[in-house]
Amino acid sequence: MTAVTPSLLVVSAHAGDFVWRAGGAIAAAAQRDERATVVCLSYGERGESASQWLAGRTLDEIKEIRRGEAEAAAAALGADIEFLDLGDYPLVESQEAVQRLIDVYRRTQPTTVLTHPLADPYNGDHPAAARMALQARVLAQAIGVANSDGTYPAEDEIIGAPPVFFFEPHQPEQCDFKPNVLLDITEAFDRKRAAMECLPAQKHMWEYYTQLAIRRGVQVRRNAGPNLGLPHRTLGEAYMRHFPQVTGVLR
Amino acid sequence: MTAVTPSLLVVSAHAGDFVWRAGGAIAAAAQRDERATVVCLSYGERGESASQWLAGRTLDEIKEIRRGEAEAAAAALGADIEFLDLGDYPLVESQEAVQRLIDVYRRTQPTTVLTHPLADPYNGDHPAAARMALQARVLAQAIGVANSDGTYPAEDEIIGAPPVFFFEPHQPEQCDFKPNVLLDITEAFDRKRAAMECLPAQKHMWEYYTQLAIRRGVQVRRNAGPNLGLPHRTLGEAYMRHFPQVTGVLR
Amino acid sequence: MTAVTPSLLVVSAHAGDFVWRAGGAIAAAAQRDERATVVCLSYGERGESASQWLAGRTLDEIKEIRRGEAEAAAAALGADIEFLDLGDYPLVESQEAVQRLIDVYRRTQPTTVLTHPLADPYNGDHPAAARMALQARVLAQAIGVANSDGTYPAEDEIIGAPPVFFFEPHQPEQCDFKPNVLLDITEAFDRKRAAMECLPAQKHMWEYYTQLAIRRGVQVRRNAGPNLGLPHRTLGEAYMRHFPQVTGVLR
Amino acid sequence: MTAVTPSLLVVSAHAGDFVWRAGGAIAAAAQRDERATVVCLSYGERGESASQWLAGRTLDEIKEIRRGEAEAAAAALGADIEFLDLGDYPLVESQEAVQRLIDVYRRTQPTTVLTHPLADPYNGDHPAAARMALQARVLAQAIGVANSDGTYPAEDEIIGAPPVFFFEPHQPEQCDFKPNVLLDITEAFDRKRAAMECLPAQKHMWEYYTQLAIRRGVQVRRNAGPNLGLPHRTLGEAYMRHFPQVTGVLR
Amino acid sequence: MTAVTPSLLVVSAHAGDFVWRAGGAIAAAAQRDERATVVCLSYGERGESASQWLAGRTLDEIKEIRRGEAEAAAAALGADIEFLDLGDYPLVESQEAVQRLIDVYRRTQPTTVLTHPLADPYNGDHPAAARMALQARVLAQAIGVANSDGTYPAEDEIIGAPPVFFFEPHQPEQCDFKPNVLLDITEAFDRKRAAMECLPAQKHMWEYYTQLAIRRGVQVRRNAGPNLGLPHRTLGEAYMRHFPQVTGVLR
Amino acid sequence: MTAVTPSLLVVSAHAGDFVWRAGGAIAAAAQRDERATVVCLSYGERGESASQWLAGRTLDEIKEIRRGEAEAAAAALGADIEFLDLGDYPLVESQEAVQRLIDVYRRTQPTTVLTHPLADPYNGDHPAAARMALQARVLAQAIGVANSDGTYPAEDEIIGAPPVFFFEPHQPEQCDFKPNVLLDITEAFDRKRAAMECLPAQKHMWEYYTQLAIRRGVQVRRNAGPNLGLPHRTLGEAYMRHFPQVTGVLR
Repeated sequence: MTAVTPSLLVVSAHAGDFVWRAGGAIAAAAQRDERATVVCLSYGERGESASQWLAGRTLDEIKEIRRGEAEAAAAALGADIEFLDLGDYPLVESQEAVQRLIDVYRRTQPTTVLTHPLADPYNGDHPAAARMALQARVLAQAIGVANSDGTYPAEDEIIGAPPVFFFEPHQPEQCDFKPNVLLDITEAFDRKRAAMECLPAQKHMWEYYTQLAIRRGVQVRRNAGPNLGLPHRTLGEAYMRHFPQVTGVLR
Repeated sequence: MTAVTPSLLVVSAHAGDFVWRAGGAIAAAAQRDERATVVCLSYGERGESASQWLAGRTLDEIKEIRRGEAEAAAAALGADIEFLDLGDYPLVESQEAVQRLIDVYRRTQPTTVLTHPLADPYNGDHPAAARMALQARVLAQAIGVANSDGTYPAEDEIIGAPPVFFFEPHQPEQCDFKPNVLLDITEAFDRKRAAMECLPAQKHMWEYYTQLAIRRGVQVRRNAGPNLGLPHRTLGEAYMRHFPQVTGVLR
Repeated sequence: MTAVTPSLLVVSAHAGDFVWRAGGAIAAAAQRDERATVVCLSYGERGESASQWLAGRTLDEIKEIRRGEAEAAAAALGADIEFLDLGDYPLVESQEAVQRLIDVYRRTQPTTVLTHPLADPYNGDHPAAARMALQARVLAQAIGVANSDGTYPAEDEIIGAPPVFFFEPHQPEQCDFKPNVLLDITEAFDRKRAAMECLPAQKHMWEYYTQLAIRRGVQVRRNAGPNLGLPHRTLGEAYMRHFPQVTGVLR
Repeated sequence: MTAVTPSLLVVSAHAGDFVWRAGGAIAAAAQRDERATVVCLSYGERGESASQWLAGRTLDEIKEIRRGEAEAAAAALGADIEFLDLGDYPLVESQEAVQRLIDVYRRTQPTTVLTHPLADPYNGDHPAAARMALQARVLAQAIGVANSDGTYPAEDEIIGAPPVFFFEPHQPEQCDFKPNVLLDITEAFDRKRAAMECLPAQKHMWEYYTQLAIRRGVQVRRNAGPNLGLPHRTLGEAYMRHFPQVTGVLR
Repeated sequence: MTAVTPSLLVVSAHAGDFVWRAGGAIAAAAQRDERATVVCLSYGERGESASQWLAGRTLDEIKEIRRGEAEAAAAALGADIEFLDLGDYPLVESQEAVQRLIDVYRRTQPTTVLTHPLADPYNGDHPAAARMALQARVLAQAIGVANSDGTYPAEDEIIGAPPVFFFEPHQPEQCDFKPNVLLDITEAFDRKRAAMECLPAQKHMWEYYTQLAIRRGVQVRRNAGPNLGLPHRTLGEAYMRHFPQVTGVLR
Repeated sequence: MTAVTPSLLVVSAHAGDFVWRAGGAIAAAAQRDERATVVCLSYGERGESASQWLAGRTLDEIKEIRRGEAEAAAAALGADIEFLDLGDYPLVESQEAVQRLIDVYRRTQPTTVLTHPLADPYNGDHPAAARMALQARVLAQAIGVANSDGTYPAEDEIIGAPPVFFFEPHQPEQCDFKPNVLLDITEAFDRKRAAMECLPAQKHMWEYYTQLAIRRGVQVRRNAGPNLGLPHRTLGEAYMRHFPQVTGVLR
């Protein structure tokens, strides 16, 4: 296969999701000097900002706060970030939103895509984000599908068929999330922790997601076998690969 | 992770299964100068030798013929082969058979294991082989489980937790076989074809499995994206990974 | 856990559904002097009123008839009832409809929610109702989601996370309906029968659903064990719990 | 059961789908002198016409070309064809489109319906077409659901509950396509091949789908048993029946 | 396809199962003058004869009573019956039992096979019977698998691949029983009722299974469409087809 | 329903399993002064005692050590414990072992049963234990199934149909473990921690399972709703209910 430039695209329903759920993968990409782009479809201003509402802030203030936190977290991870400001609770699917994502795909030419899993009985915004991310990925491959400005893409502007990985939801079993990829994030975890600490309103989550990294790290070791020299405290993130893996070697 | 010596172990219910279903993966390993070992649990003497029975051969003659063909096919692929002669139709599960597989695991120290999928309503020997291969893989990891000769293994004789891939059954959908790994066998296919031609009694299968390689190759290209420079006639084999993939990079 | 006032909310796609499918649960709540509220999203005027159409009635007449029957049935069960008149066949999902349900949730503060299961290949209105009921339940929990009048809820106006139970569809196996809760409605059945008899156009269903109560009652006894002193003619209704049960005792 | 006039309705997302996936069933119906009607929801002008776009054609030109090819293919099969021109990539679901399908159902009074399966991660137009085909089938049964012109149907204009079969997607396992019906198309295959050859832009697919017919034909023979006198080269198509089969004999 | 002589084989774990669950199919076959053979693997002497044990009867007495009842019921249906007397609660799987079933298959040359579904959390004998029935069916197809007397079968003594239908368990949803075939048994029901009345100890089941026939009959009508002239009181039995249906027409 | 004396039966494959996975439920039962009985099918002497083997201990020494630890842990929880010493790695299923479990069921008359889930690709002993626990539970209900000493049970010696809960495996998602019951063990956790500390060889697990209790506790709170006054640090255990819940109230 010919070489392609690695490019990671992360489609996140709300401003904070990418940090807790995929911060390790993003930081690891950045540590390899690969491009990583986070697209937040909303700020999570209505559904994930209870403490701000209780503090009496306005909608615009909350969006501003969450944008700033997300930008800081993305910077800590080493990723670019953009915001589509589509609104949350509910995040409403639309062809306009999908079209904007098509443009993002064609601009960033992702070789790997991360997004939410397709089921989440606790938060409908997450599967809505995933459905739009998946639909845009297919449409962006077609030369007959126009860009937002009405022009048709050149042959090298359409994308290939990048693999998609779903990151871990809050209650994985209830979301039919059965990980089939365990990512070793031991080296990247310091950056992930730093990014988490950019989100002061969720301070109680810092430890929760550190413990989750330990838990997934135990599974990394269990599934890699005891003989591979992994450090005792391996840290991990769990993913579900949505399309078959294409490979030249079975490992 | 520290380097380990690649070693491929293939557990095949009958003498011919490994050729049709995993010949590409085996040949590719051999082409990389990696060790590949095929273990045939039976010769397929009762259930897969109808033409020999119709020709009036005895059980022992049929076993001898099938053994010779399988040896030739393994040689064509570049693999070692051994036969446990457990009988087929039915292949009966037993602790004795599992114990012999434990010994094979400890001797070959596989880093990758291939076997049948766990469901096959058309042939119960296939899932029986898979169940024994999986059970032996777990038991071989335990230092408290003795070898066949009653001795206990040394610390470096037990095995790790090698990944297991199920190869493709004859009627995949009926066996709940949903491939999550597509292997590019373009370079290895000539060897696979040569191995298939070592099985003259199934001559009608040569073309059938060549066409299957084309079909799976189309899927390799579809899932790799159109931009990766894969040749037009990519050839493939399909697998199901049984345990989560452990990796340092999401690709 | 602190005491909460029990409140049952039933979201029914059509005017009659709640009677056949959940009448026992509703009557039992009323018998315990608990509040029960039925919300009918439509009257079932197009899809479930064939005999009225054949009799030459107009759309408005049919809606009126069905409204009257449903009110009588609710009264027989001991429940309040309201009608959103969203239209049926198809029941079209919309954010406006969901918003009205958010208001209902906040007003009734349900501790238990009943609705249709998420799959029904025979009637798309049923899963549409369920999806809206589930979405509104999540949104009503968020302090940042406004009421219909544009005001934001006070802290005690948002709701908790009440358990949701799907009631039994007409062809349960085809709807992937696998009951995980069997409700004993022996004491409440007379009221349910009375409510069924408020629906004269479906007279042939009275016996059908009485027989179903017997059938589910046999399963109540089977799953409770033979020693528990249940009466020979135990009557039952079947439900699917959608979220994990939270409990202090495993029973 | 009383006799009904056989009528086959095929709902196809794009102009070519019905040929590759259901051409054998359509031709076989025509050979039995039964009515067959194909409804193409779109021309596949954006998503399945890459070579035309690369050749610089306009949208209208592409639609015209694909319409002509589809008409030729339908004629070769012996079927009527109509086009709803709803647009593709994405094929957007709407009540207007469903209403037009309701009219088609009532006009053609199908006794068998063929459409796409409900899952296809590679092409969202296919499940969108299936969902609309299924929804319209239910609505067309109701006497209270009006026609497009606002009139209500007479009692003999509504339809029964015709069985629905999903035809085979391009990557069946990834679409959770587990065939439960294998159709013998040996006699009809020449017509199917002729229809495929009406689609010159996909010349590489002619052989691909011929090989698929051979593959499915092998499964026809395997599941029919070796004793039934089927010809060595039986050809087949695979289907998933969506509703339970109603029968008087278990065969 | 060449004509074959219809022959129905029913593999029943206990002496009464075939009556309640498949009596309609058996009677219908007999009414068509087709051969029907019931094989009871046990008498149900331990697990399904509580009232006899409470009445103080011995094991041998109970077996005798149940054998007599089953013979009377089979006669009422028009079927042959034989008993393997393998013991129940538990029904233990063994190669010896499978071998006896192989002989039955070769002797009766079934064109249709009925047995229990593969899951039943309430009674492990049922799936054990199904597993043995399925295994024997595959082994009986192989010319290299000997008969019980050690001889090898002639070419016309082996069997084809007859379709297998699972009949309805007592709690269908809990057994993952999703019917995909609904059999119209209206004409055969009188015989089924007569056969049920041969089992006086289960008198309370006569009405229960009559009501079930009504319930499944309603589903026959629903899935056949309202226009087919089925009588108002259609009676039915539900089945799950285990292998794909092979057909020349999609109906 | 008439009152029954609560009795908890826990069937554990190895000597330590019940502590990590169900210690909270056991301690909570004891705190309610209910009887709790743990049955360890093996000591986990081969598969879960690697450090002891590395330390050069003999099989008998290891069994003795593990028995002592398990006795201490059971005492800390407040439960009786017994050991069947069936051997592990593999735990071989047998009718003799099932018969011994039948005796245990009849002696302890459990009203609640806890055991392993039915799938565990990492340890086949766990599902083997579950299968035997489930089979014995059914057989113990039958008056025609003898006790180990050959006598038949009196009418009050057979058991009812106690509910069964599967406790959490080490890698829940890989074992298809989707919790449908979340147990609040906040009050019981100190006892569970004390029991864990009776197992010094697994000291690294103390913290791991404490963190798991926190994680499941977060889910207890999420699924109970924010308004119920649960303490901030609620601790939990997750379970899968295997049979439908029978209840008089939907909560």
